Amino acid sequence: MGEKDFSDRTLAADAALSFVPLPVFERVRHMPGDPLARAAVLADLCRLNTLYMIMRAGSGHIGSSFSSTDIITWLWTETLTATNSRAAGSDVYFSSKGHDAPALYALLIALGKLDFDLLHKLRQIDGLPGHPDVSTPFIATNTGSLGMGISKAYGMARANRFAGRTGRIVVMTGDGELQEGQIWESLQPVANERLAEITVVVDHNKLQSDSAVAAVSDLGPIEDKFRAFGWEVRRGDGHDFAAIRDAFAHFATVTDRPQVFIADTIKGKGVSFMEGLACGDQTYHFHAGAPSLENYLAATGELLSRVNTRLEALGQPPVELDRGPLPVRTSPKAPEKLVLAYGDELLAMARTRPEIVVMDADLLSDCGIEAFREALPERFIECGIAEQHMVSAAGGLALGGMIPVVHSFACFLSTRANEHIYNNATERRKIIYTATLAGAVPGGPGHSHQSVRDISAIGAVPGLVAFEPCSEREARLAIRWALEANDASTYLRFVNVPLDLPYRVPDDYTLEVGRGVALREGADVAIVGYGPVLLTGAWQAADLLAADGIKATVIDLPWLNRIDDAWVRDVLGAFPLVVTLDNHYLEFGQGVMVAAAMARAGVHADVAQVGLTDIPACGANADVLAHHGLDGPSIARTVLGRVRQPATPK
Amino acid sequence: MGEKDFSDRTLAADAALSFVPLPVFERVRHMPGDPLARAAVLADLCRLNTLYMIMRAGSGHIGSSFSSTDIITWLWTETLTATNSRAAGSDVYFSSKGHDAPALYALLIALGKLDFDLLHKLRQIDGLPGHPDVSTPFIATNTGSLGMGISKAYGMARANRFAGRTGRIVVMTGDGELQEGQIWESLQPVANERLAEITVVVDHNKLQSDSAVAAVSDLGPIEDKFRAFGWEVRRGDGHDFAAIRDAFAHFATVTDRPQVFIADTIKGKGVSFMEGLACGDQTYHFHAGAPSLENYLAATGELLSRVNTRLEALGQPPVELDRGPLPVRTSPKAPEKLVLAYGDELLAMARTRPEIVVMDADLLSDCGIEAFREALPERFIECGIAEQHMVSAAGGLALGGMIPVVHSFACFLSTRANEHIYNNATERRKIIYTATLAGAVPGGPGHSHQSVRDISAIGAVPGLVAFEPCSEREARLAIRWALEANDASTYLRFVNVPLDLPYRVPDDYTLEVGRGVALREGADVAIVGYGPVLLTGAWQAADLLAADGIKATVIDLPWLNRIDDAWVRDVLGAFPLVVTLDNHYLEFGQGVMVAAAMARAGVHADVAQVGLTDIPACGANADVLAHHGLDGPSIARTVLGRVRQPATPK
Repeated sequence: MGEKDFSDRTLAADAALSFVPLPVFERVRHMPGDPLARAAVLADLCRLNTLYMIMRAGSGHIGSSFSSTDIITWLWTETLTATNSRAAGSDVYFSSKGHDAPALYALLIALGKLDFDLLHKLRQIDGLPGHPDVSTPFIATNTGSLGMGISKAYGMARANRFAGRTGRIVVMTGDGELQEGQIWESLQPVANERLAEITVVVDHNKLQSDSAVAAVSDLGPIEDKFRAFGWEVRRGDGHDFAAIRDAFAHFATVTDRPQVFIADTIKGKGVSFMEGLACGDQTYHFHAGAPSLENYLAATGELLSRVNTRLEALGQPPVELDRGPLPVRTSPKAPEKLVLAYGDELLAMARTRPEIVVMDADLLSDCGIEAFREALPERFIECGIAEQHMVSAAGGLALGGMIPVVHSFACFLSTRANEHIYNNATERRKIIYTATLAGAVPGGPGHSHQSVRDISAIGAVPGLVAFEPCSEREARLAIRWALEANDASTYLRFVNVPLDLPYRVPDDYTLEVGRGVALREGADVAIVGYGPVLLTGAWQAADLLAADGIKATVIDLPWLNRIDDAWVRDVLGAFPLVVTLDNHYLEFGQGVMVAAAMARAGVHADVAQVGLTDIPACGANADVLAHHGLDGPSIARTVLGRVRQPATPK
Repeated sequence: MGEKDFSDRTLAADAALSFVPLPVFERVRHMPGDPLARAAVLADLCRLNTLYMIMRAGSGHIGSSFSSTDIITWLWTETLTATNSRAAGSDVYFSSKGHDAPALYALLIALGKLDFDLLHKLRQIDGLPGHPDVSTPFIATNTGSLGMGISKAYGMARANRFAGRTGRIVVMTGDGELQEGQIWESLQPVANERLAEITVVVDHNKLQSDSAVAAVSDLGPIEDKFRAFGWEVRRGDGHDFAAIRDAFAHFATVTDRPQVFIADTIKGKGVSFMEGLACGDQTYHFHAGAPSLENYLAATGELLSRVNTRLEALGQPPVELDRGPLPVRTSPKAPEKLVLAYGDELLAMARTRPEIVVMDADLLSDCGIEAFREALPERFIECGIAEQHMVSAAGGLALGGMIPVVHSFACFLSTRANEHIYNNATERRKIIYTATLAGAVPGGPGHSHQSVRDISAIGAVPGLVAFEPCSEREARLAIRWALEANDASTYLRFVNVPLDLPYRVPDDYTLEVGRGVALREGADVAIVGYGPVLLTGAWQAADLLAADGIKATVIDLPWLNRIDDAWVRDVLGAFPLVVTLDNHYLEFGQGVMVAAAMARAGVHADVAQVGLTDIPACGANADVLAHHGLDGPSIARTVLGRVRQPATPK
């Protein structure tokens, strides 16, 4: 799930990347002879293009793509029929883990099923989303939220039976993904209804995010587990095409139960230095994010060399690659890294407060708590990809007198464990939920990871105060407030994009529930928002408006579900126009809370509200913010439209 | 989970109920001789009081209480030490299923751990909540939401180890509860960390809600499953005290892994006609709700007779029961049953639309779809207690061309499957989510079942329109609108309390997104709400206000997350005061959406907002509504306060 590269990019003039052009695939696909040999070449050609796509995009999951490449290459070219087409009897394939999407895209492009030009558009608006989406041809279902795939296959199989359609349904899962309870929730009904048309492939590469599955939450005897749930089980080498072929040939004879192929694979398979953990290393370095140019070139060289060696052995001419531009990433100069500042402050407090315990769901580095694990390993609990378990376990820890600080991405923590956060709240113990990767950007991973409805999802949990800091300083104040000042529970929402901030909170700033602070002042309009993305946009808008003679106040209101009506009356009552910003859906974001408070407080300013109104776009950060009206120029235009023509409702 | 009795009650003058007084328990507990014989008497005495409590309350779960009574009686009196006290080395016991709370309460009262007077106060405000809550002495954790117990035990065990405390932690689960994925999500970490202090007891009574577990979603070989997850397994008769004793004696020798006792039990054990399914019957009749007086008296007679026979054999004098008042339930005269009307309309449409498929998570009768299953069984999918699986499977069905209509209680559907509803929404297929038991009443089950944050939880799912009907007619319009007029997905929110409605929607009423309809008119105040509970309260308030010369308009606004700003301007703009009502938390209910729309639309009326601000109270419906300011008199008082003294924010 990890998402590490958040920077936008431009393209360099010189072409340093390389990719396999379409005619090569057409030639290799129609090569006569041993299909096993052909598949080996085809798979490595796909790996070359997977690497290209990820380098071009600046992010994407190499390790998981490479461990699954051989399997999908074989299935799509040799086993399945009319896969994911609408033809009668067509088979269905999809990946439940979803972050291996670049491998599948590369294969679909190689097979001519996707427009070749999309090779250059991974994680761009109107390109290929970071995780699979049904708006892309030949993508069967939306994934990226783990553990849902077998349930979806169950639904598809039942729909096929309703319609009298046939066809096999193959679902790829990760091995870390098996930690999700829904996997086991879904196995039993599939077996009970004897849906023999469903086959699961477990891409058992032994690594999840950055660590070994066995170190995070060991799976025990996987085969016994599946058998106990009534499934037919085969295990084999997921990089041995004959093993894949034989497993599926066996499965074709099974008519009374679903089947699972536990594929022993190697994360990063195909490039020697990307394969698994390096000797003595506990961290895998190619889970998410683009490699260095040096690593990229070495990997491409190794893959191309093997392809051409194999082609030569088959009596075929070598492959030549086309060249593509190397994106140049424009990095912020002195970016604030809120999550790291938060983690640092948390660690400092934990050193003197032995009741603090930190919990994680396999997103350690994205949650700023690597240093905590290093310094206080005895008070660090790695739960694996098991958000429900983690949050309920936090409840048990709190009942036992500890203060748990629970970490995951906002999109998962606020939704997967939604009932569990509520259940804990009813016990009135103190728990801190730290939710990172919040908001519409980074825009690359796609809507499964863009958390733009978490304020709504947890906003009405009784006693739970939601807060989003806008700077490193406010991040430190936030965790200190949550631990020292707030008797109840806190939801800390963090944007992970490192940004150069044009503002700073006042030196004498202290947190008061429901009340904001002005970052700059101007009498014509108050722009109210939270977090670094919105407030940077608001600041840029204020600069643009100043050029038009409009003076804007920019207000940091970090309280997401608590608004002080008196503060609204006293502060917002002074403006003719109030613009609320949400890095979230308009429905049930902070903006409606502010506007409702204005109505209650008798503040009669004109009100405009900016936020998302549809599924977030996937693409470069600047593009995504502009698309949703949340960048500086868009915010300025909204203000100008209102200043020049006050709203009447349509 | 089923909750069937929603009516309020008064007490009759004559005493027809009977209960075991405290001195009897004190005598039996100190009876010399065979502890097995003593436990048998004690358990049946507890069953007598469990029955009394449920009759007095008018609702509660007999079957599940009785199947677990023998186990908890033995554990609390013979096996565990200082259970749930704060003493050093004390053991912990709690039930993860939670709806067997009456049995545990009866036992705690028998042991003198709870004030005896609480026997008369099940499901009353300031009494014993319908599901366990830590505000009650000797209750270790809040349950009622299934599947969380083992995770909570994990947290408690870790907290004990942090603090250097010892003590066993015993968790009771249901067998239907094993369908929840979180159970399996939690088993592995407990085994991996070798938390041998944790023991799970599965109350394997083979029945869930109204049906056989094997018919709903068969569990397969339970012992193999637990073993594959690394647990020490014993299976035995959960009504044989020696078997319970021996299992726990064995578990005390296991030091390297957690243990599970699969207790073969009988739902309703102890009363012949309540034990399991009657011959030829597929429905169990004593899951939830009070029995008839006739059944109550017969059950009490049978239990008392057995107790006294056993006492006589032990050379002990017989037990005499004390008498208690029989509550008289005041039933509505011609109540509207919205859920049944909905189910009827859905069935009528499904007969001509073969793409409609109905899904359920073990709450068939509470969701109005019994008739559907009867009439169109081939298009009915029972998923068991597996909300995540159900919703993701609905996604698969929708991708396959079906229109799934998905059912559960609002508290579970909106939260347990929260991420799954969002994932489906991103595929832009059409799914209908029907969420029943919404709102603060019935107040008996307690906060795990009182769904007062679901509007918030799902309100920002893109494209998902949330709607709550206020009458049978509007319920029929709603499902027809969702199926015929709405291209996207719909969340239908239903109150389950049958009420005599003082209003009716106009004969020419049609649904228009975001726009309400006046049920009665008056110029002084607009009271805006949704659903039968709020609008009945608003109507009663309007009657009370009329006596004070204040004329109120009552507006039914069934759209929960879509408000038409122009309608707000045109309609609400005419009033000096607008009062919004929420059968939901104030934060992120409909009220803030209405108030925000007023601010955007330039409507400058005074605004008052009524809704919940804390965890909902557990008790009789009228008491709960009054407690939260949502009954007629409370609403009238709110209006009067504003009319006489317009608000200024504090």
